[in-house]
Amino acid sequence: MAPKVKLIYFDSWGAGEPIRYLLAYGNIEYEDYRVLVEDWPKVKTSMPFGQIPVLEWDEKVLYQSTSICRFLAKKMGLAGDDDWEAQEVDALADTIADLKQAINEYGWYCSRAERPIKKQKLIKETLPFILSRFEKRIGENNGYLANGKLSYADFIIAGSTEYFSATMGFDITDGYPKLKALVDKVHKFPQIKAWVEKRPKNVYAFKMDD
Amino acid sequence: MAPKVKLIYFDSWGAGEPIRYLLAYGNIEYEDYRVLVEDWPKVKTSMPFGQIPVLEWDEKVLYQSTSICRFLAKKMGLAGDDDWEAQEVDALADTIADLKQAINEYGWYCSRAERPIKKQKLIKETLPFILSRFEKRIGENNGYLANGKLSYADFIIAGSTEYFSATMGFDITDGYPKLKALVDKVHKFPQIKAWVEKRPKNVYAFKMDD
Repeated sequence: MAPKVKLIYFDSWGAGEPIRYLLAYGNIEYEDYRVLVEDWPKVKTSMPFGQIPVLEWDEKVLYQSTSICRFLAKKMGLAGDDDWEAQEVDALADTIADLKQAINEYGWYCSRAERPIKKQKLIKETLPFILSRFEKRIGENNGYLANGKLSYADFIIAGSTEYFSATMGFDITDGYPKLKALVDKVHKFPQIKAWVEKRPKNVYAFKMDD
Repeated sequence: MAPKVKLIYFDSWGAGEPIRYLLAYGNIEYEDYRVLVEDWPKVKTSMPFGQIPVLEWDEKVLYQSTSICRFLAKKMGLAGDDDWEAQEVDALADTIADLKQAINEYGWYCSRAERPIKKQKLIKETLPFILSRFEKRIGENNGYLANGKLSYADFIIAGSTEYFSATMGFDITDGYPKLKALVDKVHKFPQIKAWVEKRPKNVYAFKMDD
């Protein structure tokens, strides 16, 4: 019997979209539950550590977005074929999480006064430093981030790029053609293409004003 | 033949100490290389994504502290016995990483002016929210964080508590007797006890002045 699966996240991309991409790629049916911002304080206390995304899978409650992605990836053979490969995929996933953290620091957590400084640091230091290393790895790995083949790290970067770009105000893959090609390749999988076509439009995304 | 293992980190606890605990617990011989702060700008560019800890294991270069812990844990049966257990351990490890991030925001990244506000938020909100949930889980899991048995998440919390407490200026396990007992239990393993006795003293730790 198919499992009863429910994703709990906001009506946005953020940390939820890579999970939605993996669920789509694996043809896993699920309820895409989107918490209204006004309901969040109430919902928060009932989540394992006060954060979402949370994935309910039958009676189990999974949390922490990268861990959820890894759990799903294991079902699809996308988490590495041995401990060496797994470590490489996991480390890249955590590197993307660090990038997300840095972008969120600018987009969400800092004061308006600090914002221009954070943005300049991202544009001049953080993004080129990390993205040029991604670019190099993709060049060495047959068009993928790790181990010369598709992994859940590719779904996380592909499912995060729009969110990162919306927050920054420009396409962060500009100037990184191999990264752009990888993101495009993931979006050309029929299941991902179908998901992107049918997913809710007008979700909350950034339109930064400075 | 034993692998040639080298840990590259600062002369501090931080993200390195949980790895040192796991290496000690697994009786893995390694070079505990400590980068001098003045050498860091030069070393940084040669690290995979400009961050440490990095673990060299024969010809392989591992990075991202939680991924390194998971890799070591798999060798010692401390990463969960199936995908459900692994997900639970991984999610807890990522939750500790979030806590570390929040504590580092206060200890390292914010301005002196913001520091009292960040500290109050940690003391009144973040720490009680997360630590009370750890306390509850430990009560439900036979004295461990996950799955009713020892896992690498226990080594991460035990190897992070001193650093967290030094940064905050008080023992963060005060008021959480089950968490305190778990941290003590890990420190009573002969290998961990021996490591703590022999490790370098006077490493860089916080003495916050506000």
